[in-house]
Amino acid sequence: MKKFINHVDDFLVETLSGFASAHSDLTALNLQPTYLERKVLTPGKVALVSGGGSGHEPLHIGFIGRGMLDAACPGEVFTSPTPDQMMAAAQAVDTGAGVLFIVKNYSGDLINFEMASDMSNLATATVLINDDVAVENSRYTTGRRGLAGTVIVQKLVGSLAETGADLEHCKAFGDRVNKNTASMGVALTSCIVPEAGTTTFEIGDDEVEIGVGIHGEPGRRRDKLMSADAITAELLEAICNDLQPAQGSEVLLVVNGLGATPLSELYLLFNCAQKWLDKKGLSVSRSLVGNYTTALEMAGASFTLCILDEMTKEHWDSPVHTAALRWGA
Amino acid sequence: MKKFINHVDDFLVETLSGFASAHSDLTALNLQPTYLERKVLTPGKVALVSGGGSGHEPLHIGFIGRGMLDAACPGEVFTSPTPDQMMAAAQAVDTGAGVLFIVKNYSGDLINFEMASDMSNLATATVLINDDVAVENSRYTTGRRGLAGTVIVQKLVGSLAETGADLEHCKAFGDRVNKNTASMGVALTSCIVPEAGTTTFEIGDDEVEIGVGIHGEPGRRRDKLMSADAITAELLEAICNDLQPAQGSEVLLVVNGLGATPLSELYLLFNCAQKWLDKKGLSVSRSLVGNYTTALEMAGASFTLCILDEMTKEHWDSPVHTAALRWGA
Repeated sequence: MKKFINHVDDFLVETLSGFASAHSDLTALNLQPTYLERKVLTPGKVALVSGGGSGHEPLHIGFIGRGMLDAACPGEVFTSPTPDQMMAAAQAVDTGAGVLFIVKNYSGDLINFEMASDMSNLATATVLINDDVAVENSRYTTGRRGLAGTVIVQKLVGSLAETGADLEHCKAFGDRVNKNTASMGVALTSCIVPEAGTTTFEIGDDEVEIGVGIHGEPGRRRDKLMSADAITAELLEAICNDLQPAQGSEVLLVVNGLGATPLSELYLLFNCAQKWLDKKGLSVSRSLVGNYTTALEMAGASFTLCILDEMTKEHWDSPVHTAALRWGA
Repeated sequence: MKKFINHVDDFLVETLSGFASAHSDLTALNLQPTYLERKVLTPGKVALVSGGGSGHEPLHIGFIGRGMLDAACPGEVFTSPTPDQMMAAAQAVDTGAGVLFIVKNYSGDLINFEMASDMSNLATATVLINDDVAVENSRYTTGRRGLAGTVIVQKLVGSLAETGADLEHCKAFGDRVNKNTASMGVALTSCIVPEAGTTTFEIGDDEVEIGVGIHGEPGRRRDKLMSADAITAELLEAICNDLQPAQGSEVLLVVNGLGATPLSELYLLFNCAQKWLDKKGLSVSRSLVGNYTTALEMAGASFTLCILDEMTKEHWDSPVHTAALRWGA
């Protein structure tokens, strides 16, 4: 295992400490239980709390700040956070308008967020993200998995919440965005969970895993390495078969790196995707290219499409100030 | 070779096309000769032009925009751009106040930028970046190599240029920042140049290359994998021996990923570095963590320290709007 690490047991705390220290203007780290909270809260705003296993950085900690999350609960690497983390985070950032949990659809996360909801005295609601069209059920899920669509939901609902929208409207908007968002990924290499010390799965030097999950879960099929154009076509075909966007639709296209894929290749994939979508009569009017929902040091990428309308465009374009996403005034 | 790629010969153009398309609000791509220029130029502002071999993205194309570069000339992967690229870029973005070339100290880049200067009718000056303390001369250099310190010089001088400073002052400031900036890197794995198709160098599963260059050039020494704390101490010791910062100095700390290292490990390294610098009585008052000066899919990282004063802090904090660095109004 070749990583920048001191002791496996300290990996998470040292990473989170570094993050909180580098972004001390945005967020503060709490330990026992572990969560990061936004430094400046807005009284009366619905609080957005997300979380999940670590190893997907910048998800979720990198999205704490103005226009996105109020708190994030990182579990150990690829391990769900516990209900006490979620409850403590929710209590820390609730300012009276209630708490919206944004949860990727993995069984452990879902159960623990539900438990936190049940145990809490706060008004809570949950948006479940299940944008991965690759497989119906999977190693850690009943139903579809959550991928980089999570970032889109966090950005759009985060923006709506800043306008003073109530919990019910924030949840409804999140559910709608999730429904209009679909993703699929591809892996060239495995990742290595620090606690395990060895690769999560084996893959040949000339193979790709089409539809991989962000913990290295199996996808749809294994194939020989194909051209970037062929990979793009297969992933976007699956995504569009699911989303069924109307001819002429405007879409947000996210090309997300899984951790070890250079930016040059992600932009090359963006170019492939743009050409493919042009031919299908879809218009890429917003885009995001980079590492946003990763799987440790996995080489690979995922595409996400979100069908846009006036409301979603407005909330995508609105100011955001987090460690990993920042624009606007 | 496992990359998202169609044909090796098209790698650069497809990557640049994707980039220009994803960031069409900021920059436009010109081919024959190849350069990217800023969409909105400020008449009377000194134009900043940088460039070098591709494969280090987001350097340099990702730093075109308000408060940084006016143009970038990407060569083929790890290959210097040609003088005609540089001349065409300079002519495209000069608005009468002259052109400042910001050049990493690699022999091919230097010679070609000098040739472009000589052949051009424009007023030009050059800032040479040589922040890498690892080795005095190297495979592609006479004198020290340029690393992620380049981004700091581009940011700070880019900010000064926006204030209307003249060419002479911009050059003098760039030289001063370069002198107060030092870097050193470490590799865990090699990279693969698309045209070559095989790893640039061999490295054992339990080895690290201390002081590696961003093309996989040899560093100071090869060792067995050490703890993140031990690696951090060795790199920062070398950097501080060179910079000799006064006790109590404020520094900008950049923890830069070389391409395949996850953000979690970069933040862990940031944590190690902060502790080490605290003990030495240095104060990290500004920081940047992420992939900014990469070496394709190399796993590894570099540290950069820049000694700060009031002027450099002001220009670091000033607004910047580029694809890879963005903050402020």
